[in-house]
Amino acid sequence: MTPPPLRVGIAGLGTVGAGVIKVLATNADIIARRAGRAIVVTAVSARDRQRDRGIPLTGLAWEDNAIDLAARADVDTVVELIGGSDGPALAMARSAMAQGKSFVTANKAMLANHGMELAALAEARNVALKFEAAVGGGIPVIKGIREGLAANAVTQVYGILNGTCNFILSAMERDKASFGDVLAQAQALGYAEADPSFDVDGIDAAHKLAILATLGFGAPPNFASVAVEGIRTVSAVDIQRARTLGYRIKLIGMAQMTPGGLMQRVSPTLVPLSHPLAHVGDSLNAVVAEGNFVGRLLFQGRGAGEGPTASAVVADLIDVAREEWGAPFAIPTAQLQTVQVADPLGADGRYYLRVRVADQPGVLAEITAALRDHAVSIESLIQIGVENESDVHLVMTTHRTGMRAVRAALTRIAEFPFALETPVLFQMMDA
Amino acid sequence: MTPPPLRVGIAGLGTVGAGVIKVLATNADIIARRAGRAIVVTAVSARDRQRDRGIPLTGLAWEDNAIDLAARADVDTVVELIGGSDGPALAMARSAMAQGKSFVTANKAMLANHGMELAALAEARNVALKFEAAVGGGIPVIKGIREGLAANAVTQVYGILNGTCNFILSAMERDKASFGDVLAQAQALGYAEADPSFDVDGIDAAHKLAILATLGFGAPPNFASVAVEGIRTVSAVDIQRARTLGYRIKLIGMAQMTPGGLMQRVSPTLVPLSHPLAHVGDSLNAVVAEGNFVGRLLFQGRGAGEGPTASAVVADLIDVAREEWGAPFAIPTAQLQTVQVADPLGADGRYYLRVRVADQPGVLAEITAALRDHAVSIESLIQIGVENESDVHLVMTTHRTGMRAVRAALTRIAEFPFALETPVLFQMMDA
Repeated sequence: MTPPPLRVGIAGLGTVGAGVIKVLATNADIIARRAGRAIVVTAVSARDRQRDRGIPLTGLAWEDNAIDLAARADVDTVVELIGGSDGPALAMARSAMAQGKSFVTANKAMLANHGMELAALAEARNVALKFEAAVGGGIPVIKGIREGLAANAVTQVYGILNGTCNFILSAMERDKASFGDVLAQAQALGYAEADPSFDVDGIDAAHKLAILATLGFGAPPNFASVAVEGIRTVSAVDIQRARTLGYRIKLIGMAQMTPGGLMQRVSPTLVPLSHPLAHVGDSLNAVVAEGNFVGRLLFQGRGAGEGPTASAVVADLIDVAREEWGAPFAIPTAQLQTVQVADPLGADGRYYLRVRVADQPGVLAEITAALRDHAVSIESLIQIGVENESDVHLVMTTHRTGMRAVRAALTRIAEFPFALETPVLFQMMDA
Repeated sequence: MTPPPLRVGIAGLGTVGAGVIKVLATNADIIARRAGRAIVVTAVSARDRQRDRGIPLTGLAWEDNAIDLAARADVDTVVELIGGSDGPALAMARSAMAQGKSFVTANKAMLANHGMELAALAEARNVALKFEAAVGGGIPVIKGIREGLAANAVTQVYGILNGTCNFILSAMERDKASFGDVLAQAQALGYAEADPSFDVDGIDAAHKLAILATLGFGAPPNFASVAVEGIRTVSAVDIQRARTLGYRIKLIGMAQMTPGGLMQRVSPTLVPLSHPLAHVGDSLNAVVAEGNFVGRLLFQGRGAGEGPTASAVVADLIDVAREEWGAPFAIPTAQLQTVQVADPLGADGRYYLRVRVADQPGVLAEITAALRDHAVSIESLIQIGVENESDVHLVMTTHRTGMRAVRAALTRIAEFPFALETPVLFQMMDA
């Protein structure tokens, strides 16, 4: 009567891979009842066979090569936790699905860059391609948008998609500390990589955003068109001034259908304290999706770490075991519709500007004249002397205006002899 | 090539029924692409054929009787929006599934009371029984717990499950108004029913909680064991004092696995401002689910209304069209495991107490002695004179202690001649 177990091969035994083995062992009974059959790991593959991972690997076949893992007769479904958009992860994805095996991955870079090819392959071979862990860690946001919002035309999807950046920005506010100091601390604690670029320069968030946008808008992933700006330009001064104005600075990934087409952007953004995302602190992630009937939905939880990410991988395996899965991007790849890309400079918005200037007569007059000449209307202005007697931070927020006009005004301002640094320009979010 | 459309019959054409017709018409193209086929309404049933519902019913067959709707040859799937735990809704559910038709409903009362029978029938006939709209309106929280958390042993699931109560409590805080005044206003605005009992007495929230607990803990729904207390006892004074102490009062449905068994409770609860549920205002709903690997997840959105509820119903229809559904409660009914019910008086917790007393010498000494005699330790105490010179509200919060001890102390206190009203006792939530 009982159907045979789902036999899983795991490639990549870092934190998440070890976590998947732990989840399947610890919760084996409840998982089998929910999945309708047992889910067992039969084989694993990783670079270093000797490393102690804190889990017993006895009874599991070992393959040095991920491609060989995918080819094993005792593996029905492959879990890819190697990472990297190309290389062995991509080779294994192609080979596993070509052999008719379902494929579960946490690899946002691979999906953002090769999602169409892989989804088409899954559809052609009638296998599952599942990737809940690729966005938002343990938060079931892929399922939430793919299935929960399926009745809606999505108008926008946005959120806090990178836990490392959120940890850094939250710590900068709490400790009134600089980006560099907090980054060093995060690296020491293991919250940030030795090379933090993928996180702090916004690339990881952009990969995730491209996947969410595909699910929301029914267009092929278009990672190349995401305008990406990381958090290196955010200073402690900006965070304090934002608070004074009633905002918190968050790295926000935003995908929005605009009259000019699909706008995708990752950028430091002032989020008003009245918005739920302003209260998502530490390394938490959160995604907001807005649909034309459901209104605004918020999904919040742990976006990284062993337990949460493994939870999402195993949820995918349970869907595979239940045979509850369809087109990877909800809509078959042949029916995804390429949409026009909006010109990022064509967007209207409200903006936060900070200019560090020499404290001398006439500066305010010159700067406000430059903004007026580009028809940029100032909503608020804060000037507080800092650090020494000869320079100040001038902080302004604008009324709704065009990005092009603000950029032009800032270019002009940067040329003034009293401008001491490149001016800072951040988006502001409405409540 | 294209599979035939899914043909839907809708019983009940109130706000939500009309909303389902609007969603399917407005988003027909994107829904068909996501569902893999068109979803069309072929027939409807309601009490009053003449009423103007703001939607065209031309081309739709009309049945005066819901049972006849379910029997139609041109109806593959039945949507039940009649309401009521028994009567025509239940008769139609039995008849539709017995005829091999899938069944989609928003009826929490019916599921809380007859969920096991209906789920077993769905399993026996191999049809879908879907109910995303029954809990949390447009929030995909049924799917989120059923599938998103499937890898976890759930430790607790709780939240703000009734929008009417949340609207009333939020308005009482904002306007410093009494329960009665705000209820009258909510009824005038259509946010509360003429007979508000189901909402304000916590019954609706208890129905929803019983469903969430089944999905989380893999036990049959046990509505009868939910300890239910509504919001009629919450006064403007309580809301103000709670704020002073750093809390907001919310009607919280809480299901928790405790050493003594499954505890299910709906009650006014002081939620600390540091908890995300404290910031869920107006008529919003939110559900928190905690799993042993994923940690804490939060789902938030509109819990009622035409658009959100219809969005959830249509999401279910899309799952039916995709044939992506399994056992209604995730685990087949035969494998759900009855769990011990915890004694509600056996729980430990922190409590908020308010006693209205005559302002005379010795009162404080008597009350604190009564608490001491039952080993209830006071964390904070506020006494501020109100209303007139002869009586005051004495507000206390306790350290962690047994519910039985607190109840016993309050019984003693209520007997003092200076006690002017039955003392108020609310739960307090940890951060």
